[in-house]
Amino acid sequence: LPAIIAKVYLVGAGPGDPELLTQKAARLLQNTDIVLHDSLVSREVLDLITPNAEIIDVGKRAGQKLLTQDEINSLLVSYAVQNKMVVRLKGGDPTIFGRAGEELDALRRANVPYEIVPGVTAATAAAAAAGISLTDRRAASQVLLTTFSRGENGKQMDWGAVTSTTSLVLYMPGAEYAEVSARLRDGGLPADLPCAIVSAASGARQMVRWSNISRLATEAKLPAPALLIVGRVAAQRAHEISEQAWAALDESPPAASTTRWI
Amino acid sequence: LPAIIAKVYLVGAGPGDPELLTQKAARLLQNTDIVLHDSLVSREVLDLITPNAEIIDVGKRAGQKLLTQDEINSLLVSYAVQNKMVVRLKGGDPTIFGRAGEELDALRRANVPYEIVPGVTAATAAAAAAGISLTDRRAASQVLLTTFSRGENGKQMDWGAVTSTTSLVLYMPGAEYAEVSARLRDGGLPADLPCAIVSAASGARQMVRWSNISRLATEAKLPAPALLIVGRVAAQRAHEISEQAWAALDESPPAASTTRWI
Repeated sequence: LPAIIAKVYLVGAGPGDPELLTQKAARLLQNTDIVLHDSLVSREVLDLITPNAEIIDVGKRAGQKLLTQDEINSLLVSYAVQNKMVVRLKGGDPTIFGRAGEELDALRRANVPYEIVPGVTAATAAAAAAGISLTDRRAASQVLLTTFSRGENGKQMDWGAVTSTTSLVLYMPGAEYAEVSARLRDGGLPADLPCAIVSAASGARQMVRWSNISRLATEAKLPAPALLIVGRVAAQRAHEISEQAWAALDESPPAASTTRWI
Repeated sequence: LPAIIAKVYLVGAGPGDPELLTQKAARLLQNTDIVLHDSLVSREVLDLITPNAEIIDVGKRAGQKLLTQDEINSLLVSYAVQNKMVVRLKGGDPTIFGRAGEELDALRRANVPYEIVPGVTAATAAAAAAGISLTDRRAASQVLLTTFSRGENGKQMDWGAVTSTTSLVLYMPGAEYAEVSARLRDGGLPADLPCAIVSAASGARQMVRWSNISRLATEAKLPAPALLIVGRVAAQRAHEISEQAWAALDESPPAASTTRWI
């Protein structure tokens, strides 16, 4: 077999605003032969792709999967073998909830040269939109990026395993707020702990709704993609961050408090 | 007082490679009056600033603080009041370990218009450099972004509060590997859990060292800025990710296992 000289680029498309693409991503989109993109990638970003490139939507649409992961893996390899330059474009950053793992494996197994181009992940775009410092040192020391999907193994979403100085960012395409609220309560988080729902961060229809864990249950649903920031840093009025308004509620350990290797 | 019409932009400079600046950040650097930057911002990024701008290094250098946080806050407000366009440039993303909280407060109190421009945070740049999918669904369901600083309150770094499906990313400027290794062991993480040290991610002198929690203690130190990725996703050989090589060690609960609101 001839050596493969084309590269597959796994590229973060950022949160939506094409201005938040990296310079490298923008350059690659203007010079590639093929783009395989997820449905989360915005129209405005797709508009930056060179008209010479073939564009393939591999994402889900209205619940219908267009291509399986195996099919996507095969496509990436087969284009590379044809020495075509491929951009695999993923919403946000490829290494955060971007399902890059299996694609990287497939490329390695086939000895296809690849490069990951990081992007702005939805968590920080949402924090920027809401004016929230996720690690405000008066209220937080760390950030947990996690997700919510109905029917998944509950053990994997151990939200009880967060301290009061952890900011929790919940990527939640399509999640029910009432269920998320209940799960956070079950995890031992205080009912009046602030949270902010950020919809379409960085896009033209960006929205921020300030709430708390209890009120979240009855909030009207914001359009997807939406993301939830939970923690003291999500207090809308900044002075509350340092007021320790929730300290009094922190005495009793949460119900689901046993941390373990599962 | 006249209304302030100039804006202060809190801008993420990304991990170092100027190609990983967002298009928006690059544009702002070419059009601003003032740039106040941290020492973590790379020389290559600073070279993109318009020659017309005044550039102020507000970061620490060799342990010596150039300006206090209060002085930085005052500078931001005073330039805005003079109707100068200000870029406050921070390494990585402003909302992740960027100390944006106090600056945002100062700007709000002074009614200065501001905007946060998110950037590529060091965690995802390091993951990209190492070819690690932080949320590889075969091995991880969430990501904890945390930090290590000598002398800080240990309670704030509750590494025991991670499950075996949490990828831990440790921002660790200047940390001692032996101490980090001991703390991770104290937190109940298995000695042979993989980790990767990534130094100068995205830069010309980028380095990745594959290790595990036990061996970390004796690794030679890599140049700052360095970051540690800990978890099953950090297995150098991808097949190990799904092999559950560490499952057998996960039976006993970690020593520091009590999760609580502190």
